[in-house]
Amino acid sequence: MKFYDCRTAPSPRRARIFIAEKGIAVETVEVDLAAGEQFSDAFRRLNPRCTVPVLELDDGTAIGENAGIAAYLEAVCPHPPLLGRDPRDKALVAAWNARCEAEGLHAVAECFRNRARGLRDRALTGGRAYPQIPELVERGRLRTLEFFDTLERRLADAPYVAGEHFSVADITALCAVDFAAWIKLEPGDDRPHLRRWHAAVTARPSVQ
Amino acid sequence: MKFYDCRTAPSPRRARIFIAEKGIAVETVEVDLAAGEQFSDAFRRLNPRCTVPVLELDDGTAIGENAGIAAYLEAVCPHPPLLGRDPRDKALVAAWNARCEAEGLHAVAECFRNRARGLRDRALTGGRAYPQIPELVERGRLRTLEFFDTLERRLADAPYVAGEHFSVADITALCAVDFAAWIKLEPGDDRPHLRRWHAAVTARPSVQ
Repeated sequence: MKFYDCRTAPSPRRARIFIAEKGIAVETVEVDLAAGEQFSDAFRRLNPRCTVPVLELDDGTAIGENAGIAAYLEAVCPHPPLLGRDPRDKALVAAWNARCEAEGLHAVAECFRNRARGLRDRALTGGRAYPQIPELVERGRLRTLEFFDTLERRLADAPYVAGEHFSVADITALCAVDFAAWIKLEPGDDRPHLRRWHAAVTARPSVQ
Repeated sequence: MKFYDCRTAPSPRRARIFIAEKGIAVETVEVDLAAGEQFSDAFRRLNPRCTVPVLELDDGTAIGENAGIAAYLEAVCPHPPLLGRDPRDKALVAAWNARCEAEGLHAVAECFRNRARGLRDRALTGGRAYPQIPELVERGRLRTLEFFDTLERRLADAPYVAGEHFSVADITALCAVDFAAWIKLEPGDDRPHLRRWHAAVTARPSVQ
């Protein structure tokens, strides 16, 4: 297996933490997104979407989405379980993970990518150029604060995002909350449950 | 189990087809989205996000995302498998399902919700009001056409979206393609593989 990563980007960080939690050794290939290496012919052949992370299996299959990488690694290496332990837990993990992606990561990206000077024609990830839309900067900011509120309420009731156990939903939520620092939003003292959870998850060896 | 549905909406249609493929009998509760029933106090208690589908388990747990509903039903009723048959297949199903959601359903929704007269302050699903942004109408349309191209290329190589077998990725893709008719986009004769697949999937008893 080869893992195509970019140390500075939030999306491959999700896969990197997932792999570390599983304790799996993989060969890592660093892709220089700042230099546009994801648009090279060689990388396009691997992943026509021009995004990281990608997990290349030994048979050459390229898995180019966090959801796919998590499903694969959970199947080949079930312990520790990160996608849930029983049907109800699996459901809560998948549902919360989807929310942390749509309401967290996508919200921060909406704000960040529509205002970053270096991304004028790259408002969306992928191979196609889409221009920035200034109104999405503020919408993304408001949605990110709404996401913080959602996590605060949730973490008042449960130690981890999906319930009693650490799961992929915590990884996605952590990457979203840390990505929010790029748009200068951080959970303050008015969100004590979110801060308690953030400190605990950040202290895990997989995150270091 | 109780399934909260809305016959006319694309998102709960995904869960409805998934349930039908599994051959599971569930009690269905119709939620009248046009009348705003999702914003009622009773529904908010069930799902504070004010969206369908919701699967309410017998212990009262409400699963409010398609990803969660699929994970639960696959765990309690593994046959026929809709989330993949082996690790590689599970990876491809999850990755393609994520793409059909992000590049298909979200693209069509971006166009549709930002121009529909009845959704002026409902450009995003959920409990919070976000105003329409006219530039997203055209962006959503272009992204939908790009998604059709992605499916056309994929279905030239494989009978189903994730490979050899029908899976949840086909359900998501079907709901996205049919949702695109709401913005007056349909795959034409220049996309023969997509049309062949669409006819085959539409003919399944679960879709009828």
